[in-house]
Amino acid sequence: MSWTEHRDTAADLAAYAAFLEIAEGLGLSSLLDRDEAFTLDEVMSAARLAEPAAAEFLKALVAAGLVQEGAEERQFAPCADMAAKRYAAGYLSWSLDANRPYIDHAPEILRDPDTARGQYRRDGRRVAVSSRWIGSQGFYPGVIEEIVSRKPRRIVDLGAGAGGLLIHLLGSLPDSTALALDLSEAACDEARRAAEEAGVGDRLEIAHRSVESLVDDASPVRGADVVHAGFVMHDVSSTPDVLDGVLRACRTSLADGGCLVVTDAVPYASGEGERSFSALFTYLHAGSMDVRLPAEDEWTEAFRRAGFSDVRCTRLPMPGSRVFVARA
Amino acid sequence: MSWTEHRDTAADLAAYAAFLEIAEGLGLSSLLDRDEAFTLDEVMSAARLAEPAAAEFLKALVAAGLVQEGAEERQFAPCADMAAKRYAAGYLSWSLDANRPYIDHAPEILRDPDTARGQYRRDGRRVAVSSRWIGSQGFYPGVIEEIVSRKPRRIVDLGAGAGGLLIHLLGSLPDSTALALDLSEAACDEARRAAEEAGVGDRLEIAHRSVESLVDDASPVRGADVVHAGFVMHDVSSTPDVLDGVLRACRTSLADGGCLVVTDAVPYASGEGERSFSALFTYLHAGSMDVRLPAEDEWTEAFRRAGFSDVRCTRLPMPGSRVFVARA
Repeated sequence: MSWTEHRDTAADLAAYAAFLEIAEGLGLSSLLDRDEAFTLDEVMSAARLAEPAAAEFLKALVAAGLVQEGAEERQFAPCADMAAKRYAAGYLSWSLDANRPYIDHAPEILRDPDTARGQYRRDGRRVAVSSRWIGSQGFYPGVIEEIVSRKPRRIVDLGAGAGGLLIHLLGSLPDSTALALDLSEAACDEARRAAEEAGVGDRLEIAHRSVESLVDDASPVRGADVVHAGFVMHDVSSTPDVLDGVLRACRTSLADGGCLVVTDAVPYASGEGERSFSALFTYLHAGSMDVRLPAEDEWTEAFRRAGFSDVRCTRLPMPGSRVFVARA
Repeated sequence: MSWTEHRDTAADLAAYAAFLEIAEGLGLSSLLDRDEAFTLDEVMSAARLAEPAAAEFLKALVAAGLVQEGAEERQFAPCADMAAKRYAAGYLSWSLDANRPYIDHAPEILRDPDTARGQYRRDGRRVAVSSRWIGSQGFYPGVIEEIVSRKPRRIVDLGAGAGGLLIHLLGSLPDSTALALDLSEAACDEARRAAEEAGVGDRLEIAHRSVESLVDDASPVRGADVVHAGFVMHDVSSTPDVLDGVLRACRTSLADGGCLVVTDAVPYASGEGERSFSALFTYLHAGSMDVRLPAEDEWTEAFRRAGFSDVRCTRLPMPGSRVFVARA
């Protein structure tokens, strides 16, 4: 593709991302994602807006090509390719919104990382929202396919956040149960609430704990058919003993035939279409978060050290992301 | 172009914009834009970085495809299409960085514009930098061509900012003089400094004044062959009397055969490739800045009221932007 087309795309993508961020702040994302018509009144109610303001915002979304006017008056529908636009916007929001403190303070961080790193933190909500947008087509579909195809009866998600992946999986696997482990109390509360709302609360346990704690107490992963860890194991990897301990705890606790599924990013990936975003992801993790991402062969080696003999690595659509499936 | 390609582009563009913003903060933009090789030592000096930090950052830029390793050790060169990448990044930085307060506070602004608008202001530097990046291919080339082709002896720029356009024009027109008018004292100081540095300080006058002040005192525009106003006249347009007065002051002050060149945005432009970014530009101006952009025919009508009989409007590459050339 020539750069003329890239240039034209940039203005469109920037506008989509800005409008989708505004809509997210207004509480309108679920209306825009639900693939069916909605009304002006639903927008007013969800966003707590008076009619003129809601109409003004919808006018802009229609002009931008994110929303279409419906057949009836006061009716609207998301554009047909909303899912692709939201996915694309995720990269912009992650890079330029969620990581804003690291961009704005890059000079201090580069000049004096030990002092500056602790001072500038990302907003967890912005990271979670933009990661979910990227994940919608960048890694969740591949991970879900990988897990569902195994028909696991028991699934554990390490660093489960608000439980989105597990709630989705429990919806597809009506006889399964799951456990969501996360270090954030707010995320655990949100996972509990979301599971109830989705009608799977009775099949989802919540463990408010760190991934590292599995070294001393592996009970949360015991008997799992699938243990999944998405973009969380790299936080553990800087201490090889802890990484080895966590991986070994998973291996010895898995049910017969079970597997560990690790979704993570490798550093400075050079596959087609990967290098630019992977460079940013790697640079920000190393420079601003002091996280050195392990390379593909370092992951494979760590799995083997923990006693996994069958390790498979597959590229996912998000540049630099990989899914590792490790079996004893 | 299919959405598959858009999706792939999004991650690249987001990474370019994030890295170019970091480089801008480090004071490295001029090295990256100068179209020739530079050394690690130049980066260390310009960015005030120790060697390991400079090398780490350059490694990331190389991996991202923004910089290439040079033939000699410690030597680097900007990628061949840096200009196009910077232009594209401009849309992302303008939308998601410069307008950040309007995105983050969109709910309050929509719910109570009169109270909220005054509370949230954009960072002038971020607006100026990202606008310059967009302008590099989005409107400056068209405006420069329009002006230079007329070989004006005297040029006045209204809302001249740091004087970049005039300094460039004076470089191309060695017998011409110019006047930069701006409301911001900091911008005027910067224009004075930049003109000296570029060796055109003796041909550039600075007027620290508002555009509106021309209604009472037209002396800054007197005898000009070209008066240019870039994205500033729309701020005046909300008060029709003032707009008419400013336009009339320009018309009656122009030298024989002179013209007024207005670069500005029209609202909700619907040309091919224009609608999304134009919708964002229009929405943010109306909702967050209380600026209602005049439509193309409203501009033309205003020029005619002020006594201009020959008005031509041309589309520029930035979605929604137009250049109007008005002659008596």
